[in-house]
Amino acid sequence: MEKFAIGIDIGGTNSKFGLVTAAGHVVGQGSLPTQHYPDFGRYLEELSTAIHQLIEKAAPGAPIEGVGIGAPNANHFKGTIENAGNLPWKGIVPFVEKLSPYFPGLPMLITNDAKAAAIGEMVYGSARGMKDFIVITLGTGLGSGFVTDGRLVLGHQSFAGELGHTIVNPTGRYCSCGRRGCLETYASATGICRTVFKLLADHPEPSEFRGIAFNDLTSEKITQAALAGDSLAIEAYERTGEILGKSLANAVAVTDPEAIFLFGGLAKAGKYIFEPTRRHLDANLHPNYKNRVKLLPSGIDGMNAAILGASALAWRE
Amino acid sequence: MEKFAIGIDIGGTNSKFGLVTAAGHVVGQGSLPTQHYPDFGRYLEELSTAIHQLIEKAAPGAPIEGVGIGAPNANHFKGTIENAGNLPWKGIVPFVEKLSPYFPGLPMLITNDAKAAAIGEMVYGSARGMKDFIVITLGTGLGSGFVTDGRLVLGHQSFAGELGHTIVNPTGRYCSCGRRGCLETYASATGICRTVFKLLADHPEPSEFRGIAFNDLTSEKITQAALAGDSLAIEAYERTGEILGKSLANAVAVTDPEAIFLFGGLAKAGKYIFEPTRRHLDANLHPNYKNRVKLLPSGIDGMNAAILGASALAWRE
Repeated sequence: MEKFAIGIDIGGTNSKFGLVTAAGHVVGQGSLPTQHYPDFGRYLEELSTAIHQLIEKAAPGAPIEGVGIGAPNANHFKGTIENAGNLPWKGIVPFVEKLSPYFPGLPMLITNDAKAAAIGEMVYGSARGMKDFIVITLGTGLGSGFVTDGRLVLGHQSFAGELGHTIVNPTGRYCSCGRRGCLETYASATGICRTVFKLLADHPEPSEFRGIAFNDLTSEKITQAALAGDSLAIEAYERTGEILGKSLANAVAVTDPEAIFLFGGLAKAGKYIFEPTRRHLDANLHPNYKNRVKLLPSGIDGMNAAILGASALAWRE
Repeated sequence: MEKFAIGIDIGGTNSKFGLVTAAGHVVGQGSLPTQHYPDFGRYLEELSTAIHQLIEKAAPGAPIEGVGIGAPNANHFKGTIENAGNLPWKGIVPFVEKLSPYFPGLPMLITNDAKAAAIGEMVYGSARGMKDFIVITLGTGLGSGFVTDGRLVLGHQSFAGELGHTIVNPTGRYCSCGRRGCLETYASATGICRTVFKLLADHPEPSEFRGIAFNDLTSEKITQAALAGDSLAIEAYERTGEILGKSLANAVAVTDPEAIFLFGGLAKAGKYIFEPTRRHLDANLHPNYKNRVKLLPSGIDGMNAAILGASALAWRE
């Protein structure tokens, strides 16, 4: 009988879960609105009930390999979620300890979203067979997962891979972490919206963006405008790619990867983000790495990417 | 009978070698002037003869664990030295393949100087028991060795750890790699000499450095001047520490180390380099890492550091 892993992706809006085969086929899935559960105990009950119902429906009696969880601010070593600003539970939440009793006997691992994406790329995606690569997730922020010699870099406290919080401009944009000029203030879905507003401030040309409030702007709208030839949108992608490409060139000098994968919302802009990023990456690489590092779209990007990434933990670790 | 490892450090001026116990005691050593041997075959003969004579003298008949070699531009995977500008042999030199026949049956590994220093710190030095740390070598250039989860990060081509060639200022100093603003153009023994000359250009104050040619300036002289209260020397260290500390804060966000070790000539300046580096490191760390990363002097720095680092490869790998 085919084995499955359970993947759970905990986001600020929704908690998605699914049953996944070793080949990366999602045979069933569901979701809960995270914000509806300020009571953590009730959340765990509803989540585990929904998952057990899914198992009964999609694969009754099937053997389960384990449970993998992706969450913001997850501590891989401690099994906790720590001070996640966009989740309803405050402080340090002992997630694995509290969820484990609902899945007796199953191995359970939690890690942050970007590390889950990196493991997902290695297990199901375009990094299969690669031992040294980086996954960059371009969502609200910029996350990253570094894999060296086939192993995810976790670090001393499991806080490795915060490339989004490397400082690229000490006098630059204010970051939610309290510092200035972090990469993710420029290279992320939010970062490119900030860049559009900077361009609107600096330039007098008309633009469709002059009729849109900051809270209504999305990276998808910027991509649509770029497709329609809006020069401001194209310039915003150019600047985003320049800062991202230069930062990736520095990251390459640290871990010497075979490939870098771009994952998440902003990566869906295709050539608008890949072309300038690749150009500035290549232009800034040390001769040792010149023309040797691939910049690729994620092979698991799509509707189920987050569930796949989380479930991959169960197969891999 | 006690076992030994052979350590060989190949430098542009001298090739040093020694016999080292598992505890890091150097029981015998010697050296050859590298530049006297443009003929690589003759170099190998003299080097292996000298090492065999050393074994006969210092530990006749003792069991040897293996041979570890540290060299500039060494390719760990291929056993080669590739296009090392300061060595007399040009192109790609198959070092391990050619030296192995002189030591039949012994495992032999080569890696670059900074990676050897990192392994040395883990085997004999102050990183014993640590699994996640970074060693920064501050010599003519800036080298680095990253260890994560107890393993040296090598990368896809074995070119990981080139923190010295991350770009800290795109319009900054010209680097021998052909680009501009690499960290090592500021934070290295050569970098601080360049900073002294920049300060001499920018400021009118008298300084003992106004009587010294660039080729005669050394980081030791700058340290001596700082000790004597020379404000320009102290300012040069302050600027070096600022750039190094900020770069280390970014490196911490990538691999989340427990400690960073400073090794090599410039690290011998003690508080003059450690104090500003630590201050700017702490000031620029993301909250996740604040007050959690140690900045320490190497525990194997000294006369035999390079031999120890090279020999550690034989014990560790």
